[in-house]
Amino acid sequence: MKLQIYKHCLSQPSHAVIIFCKLHQIEFEEIEISLANGQQYTPEYKVINPMGKLPAIVHGTYKLSESHAILIYLASFPGVADHWYPSDIQKRAKIQSVLDWHHSNLRQTAAYVMNSSAAPLLRRKLNLEAAVINRKVLLKSLKMIENFWLNGDGKFLLGNSQPSIADLSLACEIMLLELVPDRDQILSPYKKVLQWIEDTRNATNPFFDELHSLMFELKAVLTVESSVAEHSEARRKLRTLLSKL
Amino acid sequence: MKLQIYKHCLSQPSHAVIIFCKLHQIEFEEIEISLANGQQYTPEYKVINPMGKLPAIVHGTYKLSESHAILIYLASFPGVADHWYPSDIQKRAKIQSVLDWHHSNLRQTAAYVMNSSAAPLLRRKLNLEAAVINRKVLLKSLKMIENFWLNGDGKFLLGNSQPSIADLSLACEIMLLELVPDRDQILSPYKKVLQWIEDTRNATNPFFDELHSLMFELKAVLTVESSVAEHSEARRKLRTLLSKL
Repeated sequence: MKLQIYKHCLSQPSHAVIIFCKLHQIEFEEIEISLANGQQYTPEYKVINPMGKLPAIVHGTYKLSESHAILIYLASFPGVADHWYPSDIQKRAKIQSVLDWHHSNLRQTAAYVMNSSAAPLLRRKLNLEAAVINRKVLLKSLKMIENFWLNGDGKFLLGNSQPSIADLSLACEIMLLELVPDRDQILSPYKKVLQWIEDTRNATNPFFDELHSLMFELKAVLTVESSVAEHSEARRKLRTLLSKL
Repeated sequence: MKLQIYKHCLSQPSHAVIIFCKLHQIEFEEIEISLANGQQYTPEYKVINPMGKLPAIVHGTYKLSESHAILIYLASFPGVADHWYPSDIQKRAKIQSVLDWHHSNLRQTAAYVMNSSAAPLLRRKLNLEAAVINRKVLLKSLKMIENFWLNGDGKFLLGNSQPSIADLSLACEIMLLELVPDRDQILSPYKKVLQWIEDTRNATNPFFDELHSLMFELKAVLTVESSVAEHSEARRKLRTLLSKL
């Protein structure tokens, strides 16, 4: 009974789920859903996830949406080390608390990236007014990670010495900032956050880099494209990349 | 080691946590934090929860915030029936999925109630522009509960025959609509939602009614107050109620 993962190549919750599977050698088939073509709203996809969101999984007759719920489900698979989602109820509830906090706070990173920069990649409109609000919540969230969630002895969230599904989920969210020109300006004040992303990357590589490679390609070509507007090679490459979204 | 619950009398996640404790005879001490006076931002409360949000619990040396995480923690207490947060991993992940969905969707109920009506009760300003957006998300969420989450044989979410912590959390969120004048207009198209709230109420009474009683008192006195502006008895009662917030 092979797991099926419905995902998008720029969706940070999809990245977290796939990195987790690859890291634990959980076999899966991935099905790309084109957000640029609105494929998440088709009747075919609505059967998988009526919410029209990604990622979603199908495991035999079992269907599940919401990346945190999926990560919790996958963490119960044989061979997954306890630190990813501890069986100790106090440790587990703390991780749950970070995951819940993510929804109403750091989750604005995706909205900021879309509204300020990336929307046209998915054939949507920028919303600079909303981006101002998203950015405020994002900065406040980074400050909270720096000063509270990373306030402990270990190098991971909650002062843990080993990563949990919360580290993976939150780090993938922040990686989306690679797509905005003010990424360094936003992140540079948060030294502990930068180090923690690097630690989470190291703990989950080569899959962390693999899953973010398209984003880096896109970033590189967008940079060339904006500096040399007529650079035909960059334009060609951009067209190729955009056709994947 | 008695549980301490930091809460607010109009906070729907606080209600869910307290109803759960009362229902399971979990002893606790409740500490009211005045949102109207900004008590959630004091240094004293920041020691309990640096996020400045309610509810939060202290259990011995253990501190926890975020109501879903708290409910998951409490569901592990002795004597809590399995259906509240099943040990079966597939059933559990489904409940997790509803709880995650709650954050980015139905959670706008509170924002709608605040922005459209209740903000002055907490000495804040209305934001009617934001309320329009909140209302849209709220209506879409109710539609999704009606047509998807309640689409099953049992009377609770996910077609379950017994309530889970997701039923309690989502029903408490919707109960906040008692504070807005368009409550019936909003809810009346959703017959299954109305029946499910009634079923969740019955499954958790007398505590469900007890926790929402202040809201009903407030609603009643606000209605009198707006119809008979000079009704001194209503004004006096309103002042008494407001002093509790």
